[in-house]
Amino acid sequence: VLSPVVTPFTSDLRPDAARLARHCRWLLGNDVGLAVFGTNSEGNSLTVAEKAGLLDALVEAGLPAARMMPGTGACALPDTVELTRRAVTHGCGGVLMLPPFYYKDVSDDGLFASFAEVIERVGDSRLRIYLYHIPQVSRVPIGLALIDRLLQRYPGTVAGIKDSSGDWDNTRAMLERFQPRGFDVFVGSETLLLANLRAGGAGCISATANVNPAAIAKLNRDWQQPDADARQAALDRVRAAFQGFPMIPALKATIAHCSGDASWPTVRPPLVALTAEQERQRREKLHALGFAMPGLRLAGPDDATAPMPASGGG
Amino acid sequence: VLSPVVTPFTSDLRPDAARLARHCRWLLGNDVGLAVFGTNSEGNSLTVAEKAGLLDALVEAGLPAARMMPGTGACALPDTVELTRRAVTHGCGGVLMLPPFYYKDVSDDGLFASFAEVIERVGDSRLRIYLYHIPQVSRVPIGLALIDRLLQRYPGTVAGIKDSSGDWDNTRAMLERFQPRGFDVFVGSETLLLANLRAGGAGCISATANVNPAAIAKLNRDWQQPDADARQAALDRVRAAFQGFPMIPALKATIAHCSGDASWPTVRPPLVALTAEQERQRREKLHALGFAMPGLRLAGPDDATAPMPASGGG
Repeated sequence: VLSPVVTPFTSDLRPDAARLARHCRWLLGNDVGLAVFGTNSEGNSLTVAEKAGLLDALVEAGLPAARMMPGTGACALPDTVELTRRAVTHGCGGVLMLPPFYYKDVSDDGLFASFAEVIERVGDSRLRIYLYHIPQVSRVPIGLALIDRLLQRYPGTVAGIKDSSGDWDNTRAMLERFQPRGFDVFVGSETLLLANLRAGGAGCISATANVNPAAIAKLNRDWQQPDADARQAALDRVRAAFQGFPMIPALKATIAHCSGDASWPTVRPPLVALTAEQERQRREKLHALGFAMPGLRLAGPDDATAPMPASGGG
Repeated sequence: VLSPVVTPFTSDLRPDAARLARHCRWLLGNDVGLAVFGTNSEGNSLTVAEKAGLLDALVEAGLPAARMMPGTGACALPDTVELTRRAVTHGCGGVLMLPPFYYKDVSDDGLFASFAEVIERVGDSRLRIYLYHIPQVSRVPIGLALIDRLLQRYPGTVAGIKDSSGDWDNTRAMLERFQPRGFDVFVGSETLLLANLRAGGAGCISATANVNPAAIAKLNRDWQQPDADARQAALDRVRAAFQGFPMIPALKATIAHCSGDASWPTVRPPLVALTAEQERQRREKLHALGFAMPGLRLAGPDDATAPMPASGGG
């Protein structure tokens, strides 16, 4: 289980590396990996230099690169190459790679060339690419024929996919065709986690793992236990509460509320924070579920050097 | 009339400033302005540093910044600010600004905040923003209510729009509501040029102005002459020939063919060059129309310092 880690901003909209590191540490302490710079990280509202700087800062803060899967796919090929190379150099466990997403209705030949060019330019056997299929946002789908072609040409390097389509038929087709070839299929929401694990999938990379990591990670570990369906149902109730709101502002508002850190709700345009009325409803819904984020705490001066919490806690 | 100037690449996919300057000079000599880094420029396949470098090179080569309207809108706010500021500093006539285009279904509040934040950060009274409405590619439309709000808050700075929707009802609504307030409406194809000019519009910013600039510019000047409809029909025939192919590769193939410069067809992924069969058909279609690009020439060693051709020629 990984979380597309939400990115905290200062009041003048600069990314805040110290608060990001703190949230990452809490997530790792709850057995959730770090898919920084994903869609829910406002990753595409950050410049390449900002992402490079944040990645450096996280490694510098002692967070384990092996547990990171930064989003590196950009519209411009050299941007994707630069960020991917940096992730590999840091020893990141993988990268989550959007296709170039400005031009629409592009051919599989063009998308294949995009990924191939990145792989060739990075030219590092340690590279592990997880393709990022999120057609409702990127509007550039990654289809089965393209995956097949990439896997044939770059086995090992093309290591898996995050299927955020929410289309289980698509996920199942990937599992059937590619998982036997060592291709890891992650679903984009924990609502499909149990189904994915039962069908041989790898796990999930989910927005709400930012706020509900321990319970999601527990189902991921204990999915063969008899209480798995009940655990899935409990995850679904929390997820449903969030899906009534714009996801990113709701996640940030929740972290702000649970940590007491009032600066968390800031988002970069074009996103907007929750309205006061939305925030009231969010608190009400989560309160009704008895929702909490145990162990989350306010900023402290020792954040940058604090030891890693033990894994699997929460 | 402006052209989203196609961007030439070297065989290893680097942008080629010298060849770009040469094409810009030819366009200006045919009375067409320079909307560099537009959609048809593969503008979103270029990094911010590449665009900044090309803009510097064009100005350095003696091309008039006042005739440039670089595309500066990016997904990440600081990228948009950086490139817009550079354009203003160079004295560019305007900038063509996409909304941040990764996140979809964003609110007008969020889009307003995006543009407002750029305007405030650039903080220069010389800034002239032409909004870029191309919903079929960006998938982030710029609606009438948003324009109204931006015009009220930033009159003068918000100077106009390129409406590439191809939806004449939308263009007409903009003309009726905003042109009287000094807001220039450009259509995104010369097929609507005469209709736009007759309704009070400002002109067009069109892909095919890369290859057919003189004739488009002539209609723009002489639209009140009795032969205007015949001129429009002639423009439409050329445009129709190109629309049978992927536009950007077809433009580049045409420039390659007419200039004898075989390096022009190179595109960056995710785009792909025309197939041999498409190229054969392209030549046949344009030959049947008697199409030519007079005055276009091969690269010469003196390009960087060549004098500007007289305006209005071709």
